[in-house]
Amino acid sequence: MKILRSYICGRWHEASSGFVPLVDPSTEEVLAQASSEGVDFAAVLDHARERGGPALRSLTFAQRGALLKEMSKVLRDHRDELLDLSRRNNGTTKPDGSFDVDGASGTLAYYAALSKSLGDRHSLVEGEGVQLAKTEGFWAQHILVPRRGVALHINAFNFPAWGFAEKAACALLAGMPVITKPATATALTTERSIELIVEAGILPEGALQLIIGSTGDLLDRLGPQDVMAFTGSADTARRLRNRPNLMAANTRVNVEADSLNAAVLGPDVDPGEGSATFGLFLKDVVREITQKAGQKCTAVRRILAPADRIGAVQDALISRLGAVVTGNPADAAVTMGPVATEQQLRDAEEGVAELARTARLVHGTGKRIDGMGTPAGKGFFFGPTLLRADDARHAGAVHEREVFGPVATLLAYDASAAAASEIAALGGGMLVTSVYSDDAGWVGDFLENGGGAAGRVYVGSESSAADAPGSGAALPQALHGGPGRAGGGEELGGLVGVKLYLQRVAVQGSRTLVNDVTGVSA
Amino acid sequence: MKILRSYICGRWHEASSGFVPLVDPSTEEVLAQASSEGVDFAAVLDHARERGGPALRSLTFAQRGALLKEMSKVLRDHRDELLDLSRRNNGTTKPDGSFDVDGASGTLAYYAALSKSLGDRHSLVEGEGVQLAKTEGFWAQHILVPRRGVALHINAFNFPAWGFAEKAACALLAGMPVITKPATATALTTERSIELIVEAGILPEGALQLIIGSTGDLLDRLGPQDVMAFTGSADTARRLRNRPNLMAANTRVNVEADSLNAAVLGPDVDPGEGSATFGLFLKDVVREITQKAGQKCTAVRRILAPADRIGAVQDALISRLGAVVTGNPADAAVTMGPVATEQQLRDAEEGVAELARTARLVHGTGKRIDGMGTPAGKGFFFGPTLLRADDARHAGAVHEREVFGPVATLLAYDASAAAASEIAALGGGMLVTSVYSDDAGWVGDFLENGGGAAGRVYVGSESSAADAPGSGAALPQALHGGPGRAGGGEELGGLVGVKLYLQRVAVQGSRTLVNDVTGVSA
Repeated sequence: MKILRSYICGRWHEASSGFVPLVDPSTEEVLAQASSEGVDFAAVLDHARERGGPALRSLTFAQRGALLKEMSKVLRDHRDELLDLSRRNNGTTKPDGSFDVDGASGTLAYYAALSKSLGDRHSLVEGEGVQLAKTEGFWAQHILVPRRGVALHINAFNFPAWGFAEKAACALLAGMPVITKPATATALTTERSIELIVEAGILPEGALQLIIGSTGDLLDRLGPQDVMAFTGSADTARRLRNRPNLMAANTRVNVEADSLNAAVLGPDVDPGEGSATFGLFLKDVVREITQKAGQKCTAVRRILAPADRIGAVQDALISRLGAVVTGNPADAAVTMGPVATEQQLRDAEEGVAELARTARLVHGTGKRIDGMGTPAGKGFFFGPTLLRADDARHAGAVHEREVFGPVATLLAYDASAAAASEIAALGGGMLVTSVYSDDAGWVGDFLENGGGAAGRVYVGSESSAADAPGSGAALPQALHGGPGRAGGGEELGGLVGVKLYLQRVAVQGSRTLVNDVTGVSA
Repeated sequence: MKILRSYICGRWHEASSGFVPLVDPSTEEVLAQASSEGVDFAAVLDHARERGGPALRSLTFAQRGALLKEMSKVLRDHRDELLDLSRRNNGTTKPDGSFDVDGASGTLAYYAALSKSLGDRHSLVEGEGVQLAKTEGFWAQHILVPRRGVALHINAFNFPAWGFAEKAACALLAGMPVITKPATATALTTERSIELIVEAGILPEGALQLIIGSTGDLLDRLGPQDVMAFTGSADTARRLRNRPNLMAANTRVNVEADSLNAAVLGPDVDPGEGSATFGLFLKDVVREITQKAGQKCTAVRRILAPADRIGAVQDALISRLGAVVTGNPADAAVTMGPVATEQQLRDAEEGVAELARTARLVHGTGKRIDGMGTPAGKGFFFGPTLLRADDARHAGAVHEREVFGPVATLLAYDASAAAASEIAALGGGMLVTSVYSDDAGWVGDFLENGGGAAGRVYVGSESSAADAPGSGAALPQALHGGPGRAGGGEELGGLVGVKLYLQRVAVQGSRTLVNDVTGVSA
């Protein structure tokens, strides 16, 4: 039985007890076991702070970017192997695995490229200097310097490669050493990714450590210069953030949590075959329900259609969802894999039962199904599921419970941008809202009324139909994070995500001295 | 007896019970009484959300800035009256009162001027648009939109005018309605400031409400689009932030808390009368100990001097501190007033006793003293107090307890920038660190090693000696906020402080549509 190892203090640590199994969700075969027993978390932190931090800070942004480029390359060079691990441990089809694995190498490559614009500097200069007195004898310049602690990354089970990489790219570029902790149940792809990076000897010692299994007393040891970035459920986020030491030290915490993302069909879009915008809406929404079996924080959970179009929209969606083949991705005919764990399967079943109190099931069973390409009764399969709620403003759990599977609910609205944005905002804060319309005035109204309820607004239109990747893609150039229920965090978005790991400092003094010490040329 | 009133729901509310007294800290005369009994906090929030928010959002940034300019003017026009209230309720000398009152009108005026650069827009455009596909069919532009909730401002007792104004300026400019709550004990100046603004009819109804007294169940009613900004003690901050509803909704919270700011004398500075830099150091440090009787979150609490200079520094400081006249600011000879409340007096006494476990008193008594111009035994007077700790790295409470009075501790270091920054960082995160040196190389080293431990680094030098206002001045152009113990918050700093009240949104779609709906000209 393969034992997953942690990479700590410059060596691989293999536990000898306390194991939990990693399972193939298509076959329920046990693939490996994992435990962090025996890890000395104080030593892990010391190693990051005393070795990794100084080593990274001695490099410039451009030099750190060059390391990210090598990390990207090594993941890309082992793409097939990582896709295979993702299929086995996460139950992903090849496109779904690629969304994770290529997302990881692509994000690293993006930040490598971005680093070139940051140059051979150890701090970033922000904005123009400003004169604060009648003469240049008192002046201020904002700079951003690396925080002198560690970046602890606690990732979700659904993106074992991208989740690690998107967080690590920003922290390493900023000059902070990373301790990354994948969800244990699907850690196979992460462990191998880190192993490839370690074997390639890319990073300075202490810059990247991996914890497989529980984090023990690690969180209780974080302090004022550390950053914790968490992706996962709102409940877990609350438990993590609430610790007395994090509160006392105001440790910077970034959370990406539940998000009841909405897709809104504009009233100008004709739900027929002739409309490119409707075609994009259908393609996107079906993808955002079924990709990774709906296990994406950016998946579409609510679909808003004008009341007089909702029947046609429902029919079109059911027709597409009915063509999805759920099963073991090892079978070439399968287009959607299982959910990742038995727990996720139970949660999806319970979640649909809760939604069904205020909505009715119009497609799918709400229960586990057998999958293609695997023995009957085996595997955590849950078919595409569509519900419909007639009273959008009083749809209860539809606006409150994130069912983390291929599940969405149709809601009608009265065709006004105000109503659509108001209903979307009932989700309490989203990572992304998608709007499908060719009417810029209507989209502008929606944005003005409801834009602030989501960290990203994706507009699907005839003019984007050929190029748009779907609302679920968290591209490194655009903000990933939303207010409220979505966690209030900010990742990616170019430099926005890097700033999580930097401390803003206003440097004041005479203009000449300030320019001198901040490296601004006068 | 004057009863302070809350301004809520478009009217003045006077409580009839539950009063606490407001006292002149120089004479212990009771000036007024205050209570929020009878305030319907749900109605206050509704009024802000349903009236104030829409009214402010219908204005552009430039229009909101024009309102700030009028607010600034009305405060400036009543400067003498406000200074008098400040003297009576806060015990401030005229310069100390001006630091608060003129700070308020100045900060409002600064943001009024800044608004002109933001223009006739309802959202801010951030950065350049970026192409996300091979064509312009998929594009992203970040914008910043007003959050659609309320800004609750809970301020500290030490800045009844500036504390209100610096927070309100940023929130109102961003387009968020404000509920402001001053510390009850010193609310006289705040109440009158709001009364002046209300009487002048400057703001749309619901844009600004005032709570005098306790906040009742107001905090329990905040949600995902709201912002709470708090200035005060770390303990109170923790209690406020920890509420289940704030955690569940990820309500945005900004904290400015304890800060053990350090002033560092560089090894190149000769502690003699001939050095302009040493002169600035002395002038600044004495001001930062005694201004507002040390009741500033930016006051100097620790003074680092090279070991071979510390004796001379101590002598020079004691000589200046000995010339301070503590007493009732109504007496023209007085240069330092009392602390603001009996509680503050007791805290200062207890604090110095705690510091004295690892440091020794070299100036002052550590106890209440009688003040000039007031009867013996009356008034909350605490003289300028200097301690000295011989082992800077093991000085216990010197790095941990913020004594909120005219109290600082001298510490020796070995003349290296690394040691100075390491000792300064023992404070666990500061609002400001000041460094006095003409050696740009040494200052650069300090900044690189220790800059990130503070949100602001103030460099005093010969070239700034004529113009520098002291490290304690939180100017609106430069960041006010620091990591760790200082709260991890970010206020002022030009647009930085405004962004606390804005939601960043990545708008994605075809370039033409994105530019159209975000108002970017192609």
